[in-house]
Amino acid sequence: MEEKLSSKAGAKPIRCRAAVSRKPGEPLLIEEIIVAPPMPREARIRIICTSLCYSDITFWRMKEFPGVFPRILGHEAIGVVESVGEDVTELIEGDIVIPTFMPDCRECMDCKSEKSNLCSNFPFKVSPWMPRYESSRFKDLNGETLYHFLSVSSFSEYTVVDVAYLTKIDPGFPPNRACLLSCGVSTGVGAAWKTANVEAGSTVAIFGLGSIGLAVAEGARLCGATRIIGVDVNPDKFEIGKKFGVTDFVSAVNNGGKPVSQVITEMTGGGADYCFECVGQAALVQEAYACCRKGWGKTIVLGVDKPGSQVALPSNAILQSGKILIGSLFGGLKPKSDIPVLLKRYTNKELHLDEFVTHEVGFEDINKAFDLLIEGQCLRCVIWMNKNE
Amino acid sequence: MEEKLSSKAGAKPIRCRAAVSRKPGEPLLIEEIIVAPPMPREARIRIICTSLCYSDITFWRMKEFPGVFPRILGHEAIGVVESVGEDVTELIEGDIVIPTFMPDCRECMDCKSEKSNLCSNFPFKVSPWMPRYESSRFKDLNGETLYHFLSVSSFSEYTVVDVAYLTKIDPGFPPNRACLLSCGVSTGVGAAWKTANVEAGSTVAIFGLGSIGLAVAEGARLCGATRIIGVDVNPDKFEIGKKFGVTDFVSAVNNGGKPVSQVITEMTGGGADYCFECVGQAALVQEAYACCRKGWGKTIVLGVDKPGSQVALPSNAILQSGKILIGSLFGGLKPKSDIPVLLKRYTNKELHLDEFVTHEVGFEDINKAFDLLIEGQCLRCVIWMNKNE
Ligand SMILES: [Zn+2]
Ligand SMILES: [Zn+2]
Ligand SMILES: [Zn+2]
Ligand SMILES: [Zn+2]
Repeated sequence: MEEKLSSKAGAKPIRCRAAVSRKPGEPLLIEEIIVAPPMPREARIRIICTSLCYSDITFWRMKEFPGVFPRILGHEAIGVVESVGEDVTELIEGDIVIPTFMPDCRECMDCKSEKSNLCSNFPFKVSPWMPRYESSRFKDLNGETLYHFLSVSSFSEYTVVDVAYLTKIDPGFPPNRACLLSCGVSTGVGAAWKTANVEAGSTVAIFGLGSIGLAVAEGARLCGATRIIGVDVNPDKFEIGKKFGVTDFVSAVNNGGKPVSQVITEMTGGGADYCFECVGQAALVQEAYACCRKGWGKTIVLGVDKPGSQVALPSNAILQSGKILIGSLFGGLKPKSDIPVLLKRYTNKELHLDEFVTHEVGFEDINKAFDLLIEGQCLRCVIWMNKNE
Repeated sequence: MEEKLSSKAGAKPIRCRAAVSRKPGEPLLIEEIIVAPPMPREARIRIICTSLCYSDITFWRMKEFPGVFPRILGHEAIGVVESVGEDVTELIEGDIVIPTFMPDCRECMDCKSEKSNLCSNFPFKVSPWMPRYESSRFKDLNGETLYHFLSVSSFSEYTVVDVAYLTKIDPGFPPNRACLLSCGVSTGVGAAWKTANVEAGSTVAIFGLGSIGLAVAEGARLCGATRIIGVDVNPDKFEIGKKFGVTDFVSAVNNGGKPVSQVITEMTGGGADYCFECVGQAALVQEAYACCRKGWGKTIVLGVDKPGSQVALPSNAILQSGKILIGSLFGGLKPKSDIPVLLKRYTNKELHLDEFVTHEVGFEDINKAFDLLIEGQCLRCVIWMNKNE
C-alpha cells in the first residue's frame, strides 16, 4: 500500500509563478515555485482567476500561529483540472472546478446528512498543510517548503487541492463570476437561504455591509424578504447595498446615543425576524441578538472574531425570548450540491454576481488588490492569472 | 365605559381560606381573606388542587423585588369557574380550567402565529398584580392588599385569573394529574416536543433531573429519542429518571476531573443531538452547548437563572459549530391549544403523569409540601383544597 501515499507514477512537478506571502503584512512576491504532483484523492489545478477575500488579508497580517510564512494565500477561485492523483474517479483533466475552504467528502455522516455542512472526515481548521496528509505540495526554488492556506492556495498559477474541497461545475460560466461562489458570496447568500431559511415577507437586519453582508442581502432578497436593513459605520454603503436589496440604512455609530439594537427594535416594531452579524465582533452579535424578534427571531453569526473572544447573552433573555442563535460556516451550504444551484440562479438572472466585481487586475498586480480591499471601495477584485484567458 | 372597568353588577366578594406568604422564607399562614369579584375579561376560580413548583419556593425566599409580601403564591393548579366578569364569552360557571403563568390571548400576532408562544398583549413579567389592570383582587380581613403571583395565585380556595391565562379542559380528568400540566410538566415535555422538536432515534442530554428535567425526558421519550442521558449531582436521580425514559446517567460532579461536556461528547461519539439545561446556571448552559453535536445540535435553556447572569459562548465556536441555542418558556407551548393535546396523550396512556405525583397533602399542610420539595425526595406534592373532592 506504500505507493498509495505517493503521487502517480510518471507524474511530474510543475514550475510556475505564485504570489508568495513571506512576511506578515508585506507585499506578496511573485516567484517561480515548484508544485508537486497530486497525491491520492488530490487534483492539481490550473487557476484561471482568483478573487481576494477578507480572510486572506487577516491571515496575511497575522504575526502568530495560525499565521505562518512563507505561504501561498488565496481561497476564492476557479480553475481547470491539470491532473489527478490515484483513486480520483470523480474528476478528469480539463474539468472546471471551484475549490472551497469547506470540504464536502460525501462519505461522512455530516456530508450525507441534510442537516449539516460540517464534514467530519475533514473538520474545519486553519491548517498550513494539505488536509489529507498534513504536508505541502509547494516548494520555492531553494527547496524551502511553502505553506498552504485553507486547503486552496489559489495565488499560484497551479495549486493542489483535495477532491473533498473541489466542486466540479459545467463549463461555460464566466470565470470572474463563478469564482465568487468559492467563498464570500456563497457564505452570505447561503446564510440567508440555508442557515436562516429567510421567509418571504420578513424583515432582515445585516450588521456590516462588506461583501459578505451584501451577499446576505442578496440572499434575503432572493428569499423574498421585504425589508432589508443594513447597518454599517459607513453611510456610503447604503447606495451600494440598494443594488442587493437593502431597503433601509442604520448607522452603526451615529444614532444620538441610542444603541443600534434599540433603533432597529423601534423601526421594526419589535425587532427583525433575522439578524446577521457579518463583522466578527462579539458586541455586535449581542446587539443583533438584542434586536431580533422575540418568539421566532434568529441571530445568525457569520463574522470571524478574534480567538478567545466570547459572546455574552443575558441568561433570562435567552430563556424568555425564544430567540435562536446560530452560526453559519460557508452559509450552511454543501459546496458540491449548492454551488451548482447558485450558478443556475445566476444564469437565470436571479442571483446578482456582476455587481460584486468592482475591480479586476492581472496577477502581477495582486498587491493592488490588497490595497483596494483595504481601502474599502472594493467589493471583489478579480485577479486573472493570464490576461488572455 | 366606566362600568367596563368594574366588576359585574351584583357580583359579591367571597370570604375564604388562603395560605398567605407574609415574610420571605417563613411558613405560609392559612388565613381568611376576601377575594373580589372578577373584573371584565377575568374569572373567579375555585381551586380544586394545586401543586408546588420550584418557582414558588424561589419567590417565597426572595427578599427583594420582585419578591413582595404579603403574597398568595402558587401557580400550578386546576379549578372550577365560580363566576366570570364582563365580556367573558368563552367561559361559564362550572367550567373546569387550568390556569397558567403563560398567557394565550388568541388575539395578538404571537398568539395567532404558529411560530411563537410569547403573547404580545401580555408580555411575560413577574408582576405582583393582575395582568390587565395592574391591581389586586385579594385583601386580608384588615383590608390590607395581598399580592398576586404569576397571574395565578392558587394557594387560595378562590382566586381570580385573567381569561388569557385560563385553559378550559374537558371535565373528568383526575385533578391531581391534570394540574401538573399547569406549569412544570408542560414546560419539560413541551421543550422536547415543541421547542426542540426531538427527532426519533436521537440522543438527548438533560442537565438537572428535577421535575422539569424528568418531564423533558418524558417528552423526549414520547418523541422517540433512543438515548436519554441524565446529568445530576445526585446519582439517586437515575432510578427515578428510568421511569421517564432516562437511559444513561452522568454525575455532574464526579468524573475524575473531566468536565461533563467532555464525558458526554465521548460517550455519544461527538455530542448529543439535543441538550436541555433545566437548572438555571449559566455555567451549565455553557457545558450543554459545548457537548451538543456540531452541525445540528440544539441547546435548549429552560432553567431560570439569577437576574444579571450571563451565558458566555466562544465566538468562534458559535461560528464554526452550526449549533443552535434557544430558550423555552412554558416549553414553547400555547396553553389553550397544547394542554388539551397533552391531556389526551395522558388518557391514551402515552404521557406519564402519575409518576410525578410523589406526595399529596391537605391544604392545612401546605408548609409540609414546601419541606418535601426542598428536601429533594419529592417531584410533585399535590395540595388538595378540600379533602372530600
Ligand atoms: Zn473567504
Ligand atoms: Zn464529510
Ligand atoms: Zn412553575
Ligand atoms: Zn397574545
